[in-house]
Amino acid sequence: MRRQANPIGELVLIEQIRRSSRRRNASVVLGIGDDCAILRPPPGYELLITTDFSLEGRHFRRDRHPPESVGHRCLARGLSDLAAMGAKPLAAFLSLALPRDIATTRSGQQWMQRFLHGLHALGDRYGCPLAGGDTAESPSSIAGAAGSGLILADIILVGAAPAGKALRRSGARPGDLLYCTGSLGGAAAELATVLTRSSMARIRSGGAAGANAAQHPHLQPEPRLATGASLLRRGIATAALDLSDGLSTDLMHLCTASDVHAIVDAAALPIHPLAAIQGPTPALHAALHGGEDYELLFTAAASTRMPRSLAGVPITLIGRITRRRTGQPVMTLQHPDGTRQPLQPSGWEHFSSTPH
Amino acid sequence: MRRQANPIGELVLIEQIRRSSRRRNASVVLGIGDDCAILRPPPGYELLITTDFSLEGRHFRRDRHPPESVGHRCLARGLSDLAAMGAKPLAAFLSLALPRDIATTRSGQQWMQRFLHGLHALGDRYGCPLAGGDTAESPSSIAGAAGSGLILADIILVGAAPAGKALRRSGARPGDLLYCTGSLGGAAAELATVLTRSSMARIRSGGAAGANAAQHPHLQPEPRLATGASLLRRGIATAALDLSDGLSTDLMHLCTASDVHAIVDAAALPIHPLAAIQGPTPALHAALHGGEDYELLFTAAASTRMPRSLAGVPITLIGRITRRRTGQPVMTLQHPDGTRQPLQPSGWEHFSSTPH
Repeated sequence: MRRQANPIGELVLIEQIRRSSRRRNASVVLGIGDDCAILRPPPGYELLITTDFSLEGRHFRRDRHPPESVGHRCLARGLSDLAAMGAKPLAAFLSLALPRDIATTRSGQQWMQRFLHGLHALGDRYGCPLAGGDTAESPSSIAGAAGSGLILADIILVGAAPAGKALRRSGARPGDLLYCTGSLGGAAAELATVLTRSSMARIRSGGAAGANAAQHPHLQPEPRLATGASLLRRGIATAALDLSDGLSTDLMHLCTASDVHAIVDAAALPIHPLAAIQGPTPALHAALHGGEDYELLFTAAASTRMPRSLAGVPITLIGRITRRRTGQPVMTLQHPDGTRQPLQPSGWEHFSSTPH
Repeated sequence: MRRQANPIGELVLIEQIRRSSRRRNASVVLGIGDDCAILRPPPGYELLITTDFSLEGRHFRRDRHPPESVGHRCLARGLSDLAAMGAKPLAAFLSLALPRDIATTRSGQQWMQRFLHGLHALGDRYGCPLAGGDTAESPSSIAGAAGSGLILADIILVGAAPAGKALRRSGARPGDLLYCTGSLGGAAAELATVLTRSSMARIRSGGAAGANAAQHPHLQPEPRLATGASLLRRGIATAALDLSDGLSTDLMHLCTASDVHAIVDAAALPIHPLAAIQGPTPALHAALHGGEDYELLFTAAASTRMPRSLAGVPITLIGRITRRRTGQPVMTLQHPDGTRQPLQPSGWEHFSSTPH
């Protein structure tokens, strides 16, 4: 449970993280190296805080995901939560437990370097430095089996929004219209590809450099920070959240928090090309239930004139909000022929991605 | 990597955490249930943030530690980091990955309830509510062995200190005196007892109710929040940190951050009774190298009139700070007979507890 230190491995690791985290912004008064980091939030702002696990074997696989993608997705999960509330990121914190070989072998250190590269490349684009965290040696299995431990990451994002203005899940009202950003189902479609071994070579090269969310919705999702900030600034969203668990699950969260019913127009859903090529039925399934698209789902009053895009990201009208009646399902799916069916949050649900 | 949801287990778990987290304080504008929590820090204050893993098999053992102690220690690790900088806690966040049986069995849910009880009992005493986090199903081993996954917790503490006033590791100057709070070596001594099966019955009953830090320095350590706040308010500490990795390792951090040398007076160390009964040599070893005492280590100018206790916790003078010379060891241990030896940070070092 405790052990003699391996200071070389540990110091190499911490120094590697520290060196990679020299960036600062005006809000970070004190970064890595003391008992706590110190942040100075902008006056008149509230703080938004979210934490998200990225666990090997649950959120990624070391034999399938390039390390840059693991780092990118780790940070993107947290940034997307800030985007959903319209907040601007101030700093990220990373708790990282690693199997011993990652800290002590050259290939392990290369994995770390590529992981940090992916994380910082995304953080740099949004002015979000790594300001602290924790390191640990990851436990091997209880039984003491020979197997190495797992890579366990927990990312913490601290953001800021003008006091009282953050977008919440709970403000949707009957009569509101339902919108989403970008396109849906792409992450689930690419994930299926990532999980087939034959495509590894292509993914490794594609995911490592020059990839973007449009090409790699699973490996390199783009948190919609500018779009979320624009929604907040314009004051046009009555409720918002990010699509991390899939439309059917996240819309249920919105409906439950707002105590409303939602009707989704199946024909209106903006299907990602990677999902569309699978044919209409799998594509609809991926758009409704595929998780990790990290687009925003939001509502606005019917009287709001909605732009076709916000911060360069297309906005699509996908349904509407009605009153919730006792005994009625929380969500309804409306097909092009006019038929309706209850929409169940029964699809791809991450046990792991539901914040509490 | 992803799986069909088990909504009942997950919802039970989240509801259990949510129900147990009804407490609020003035800084928590929005708690569990949205994409992020919202905090409103007191005006004129800076924010202090720290993250700490509590991993089964690394920081605790399910067959050795009562769940209340696991919850208590999980939160105490983070609170102690705030104490070290003189900060007042605003809120805690918990990322928690659990093996499936914890969410789905009655005994698992009881474990969770007792864990949360231990965590909240400590949080309540310091006005520190749980305001958010993440839940996940803990990955089972890579090899897909039959073994259940591990309990993985990451605690995030957000605190506040008057702008520019937080205590840091880097302010010690030659001529300063070196102090610690409370007593040392008790946690290491009790840990040795905890790891022997024969004492389980006694620990279970002792740890579950009415325990305190003096009796159970390992199972129920007390974060020195009031003492740290007092040091900040009085402005008497030039540098401070908490004793999480053991005196020899943490003092090295202080010396490195402040670029100074320290002389520790072996005879002056306040030995915890549980360590003292082991005899002089093991007791000295536990006091120097035993981790997780969660006392504060700090320096003050020699001209400062130091009280014998602060916020009810005894303060002991244990050494002094001198100039650091090239080629000289960073720390020296002085024995009662006047002999001196280099003090190496070679003892019980947690790979896991070094913040980066």
